[in-house]
Amino acid sequence: MMLTAADRFASALDLAGVGTGALLLTSHEDVRWTCGFTGSNGWLVLRHGRATLLTDGRYIEQAAKETNSCVDVLECRTARSMVDTLVAIVPDGPVAVQESHLTVSTWRSISAVVGERLTCAGPGLSDLRRTKSSGEIDAIRRAARIADDALATCLRLLRPGTSERDFRDALEARMRELGADGPSYDTIVAGGPQNSALPHHRPTSRRFESGDTVVVDVGALVDGYHSDMTRTFFVGSPEADVVEWYRVLQSAQALAVALVAPGRAVKDIDAACRDVLSAAGLEKWFTHGLGHGVGLLIHENPFVNATSEAVLRPGDVVTIEPGLYRGGFAGMRIEDLILVTDDSHEILTSSPKDPKCPR
Amino acid sequence: MMLTAADRFASALDLAGVGTGALLLTSHEDVRWTCGFTGSNGWLVLRHGRATLLTDGRYIEQAAKETNSCVDVLECRTARSMVDTLVAIVPDGPVAVQESHLTVSTWRSISAVVGERLTCAGPGLSDLRRTKSSGEIDAIRRAARIADDALATCLRLLRPGTSERDFRDALEARMRELGADGPSYDTIVAGGPQNSALPHHRPTSRRFESGDTVVVDVGALVDGYHSDMTRTFFVGSPEADVVEWYRVLQSAQALAVALVAPGRAVKDIDAACRDVLSAAGLEKWFTHGLGHGVGLLIHENPFVNATSEAVLRPGDVVTIEPGLYRGGFAGMRIEDLILVTDDSHEILTSSPKDPKCPR
Repeated sequence: MMLTAADRFASALDLAGVGTGALLLTSHEDVRWTCGFTGSNGWLVLRHGRATLLTDGRYIEQAAKETNSCVDVLECRTARSMVDTLVAIVPDGPVAVQESHLTVSTWRSISAVVGERLTCAGPGLSDLRRTKSSGEIDAIRRAARIADDALATCLRLLRPGTSERDFRDALEARMRELGADGPSYDTIVAGGPQNSALPHHRPTSRRFESGDTVVVDVGALVDGYHSDMTRTFFVGSPEADVVEWYRVLQSAQALAVALVAPGRAVKDIDAACRDVLSAAGLEKWFTHGLGHGVGLLIHENPFVNATSEAVLRPGDVVTIEPGLYRGGFAGMRIEDLILVTDDSHEILTSSPKDPKCPR
Repeated sequence: MMLTAADRFASALDLAGVGTGALLLTSHEDVRWTCGFTGSNGWLVLRHGRATLLTDGRYIEQAAKETNSCVDVLECRTARSMVDTLVAIVPDGPVAVQESHLTVSTWRSISAVVGERLTCAGPGLSDLRRTKSSGEIDAIRRAARIADDALATCLRLLRPGTSERDFRDALEARMRELGADGPSYDTIVAGGPQNSALPHHRPTSRRFESGDTVVVDVGALVDGYHSDMTRTFFVGSPEADVVEWYRVLQSAQALAVALVAPGRAVKDIDAACRDVLSAAGLEKWFTHGLGHGVGLLIHENPFVNATSEAVLRPGDVVTIEPGLYRGGFAGMRIEDLILVTDDSHEILTSSPKDPKCPR
């Protein structure tokens, strides 16, 4: 699916349900997706047939290069000037904004000028970037491949004496060598009975010891798109109970992955995964959602958990990442990145799931 | 200055001007500064003598480790549950929020329950983290030193044939080796007449050529604190006009740095710097603010520009970073990180400003 700039403008206006009014996009990722601008400060104002980007002096030249010629670029030196310029180019009718991104203070600044015309875009807009195009899938696929390859070359460091930071540094350096713009998020390397039990642990100088589980959660960034993968390894031989937990977790993750398909409610996948853990008495150690969408943001729609009403559809890219965390005992997580296809799914991460480290 | 947890709670409540009401902190950095929690999802609720942290299951164990025993930690599985829990623990009186951080949708969720009791914290709260303690200054100093040392070891790569990405990768790897948790922001390496003229250029595979100016904007991250520095180099010999621009820019930057002192209005420093550039007819090529505060955020109060009413005070850490950008000709920027002391200032960045590259 190739989308033109006009397609993207129309899609945003349609999903927002603003009719003949104006739509203000303030989410960086939505601005980028819609008009191509990648700077950190930009407001995109859409009206039927017109698009205007407001940004500051640092980005004027960049904006002109990155956006289609049908986007007008206007320089605004201050936050106040952004509001004034917005108001000047939307002379009448409703002005819809992104209530999940706009701050209360900016809302108030705009409201002070346009009053009752200020409104919230419809909830459909939160799915603006959800269905990935072939170009987006290519970037995510490349990012996933880079993380796979980097992890493969770093496996030899998974031995007693290597520190979490050393391992993180080696992984990230290798991803750069392989063409990544950087890590997709703060790489997690968490070893041993305490650190591995913290789902979002940050790497420390602690060195791996025999008997550790080591959780490695790593992704690459390619052209703004993220990958996301977690593997858990055993350094030496952990206790038998840890090995048993891993076996159960792997079954639960595999089942959840198998259920990824268009038309499937995400809450059903979450429930099926938890059922496997429950049967082994382990469900209480799984303390987070099952997964999330991945694209220009590392966490985006559709979220995969028990409270989401989302139903999967072709073009969704989601993670499936159950984990078990018991401080003082062990922590573990297995995560794949999955593309929903027209009739099933494709797993974009391909690192093996054998937890034993190479000798 | 050593601040206890109680001091920080009191400071936040005082700056917010909430009296006997409750204050909800939602900015990650403000939550971290106030109670020590470093996770990505946490709301801190302060009332006189009480502090409660709301976070999700991923962070319960981490929160208990990171926060003082006087902080109650409550688990909230969903965004809805965050709001419900907040409302449950602030049974009466006003509830003040951070209007510059809270989104409109979260405001509406809270407002739907507490109604007119919902209010905005006073503007003084935006200076909560502004005055750095000795511990914070130590972290920033270490971060600045790491960037200085990394740049020094990478200077030999500033020669024709090295790509922007190669140079970025070498710099960032060296900062890690020197103990940084990572780069402080996306490192900028911008070479040649086009790329160097983009203030926020991202490194590409373009290789340096003789005659280039190369802008290197780099900082390190240490214990959550950032450093920030820019230097501009000449690869080979640029045109005489470029050398002249650099001389003017260096004078303007040095003057601005010299003016950094307690009691000085930041707009006066900005004006003095622009006056030097104007005298040489170059002011129009300086298209951004002069600087910004640095701490747990790379850009924070006090901002140093023509529209800010801020007056410097001891404990402020700010950048002074004028630049000149003319696409097709050259771009250049010189940036130091400066601590405002009791009677003057201390420059925390110490890399030389000689633009000539070593042979």
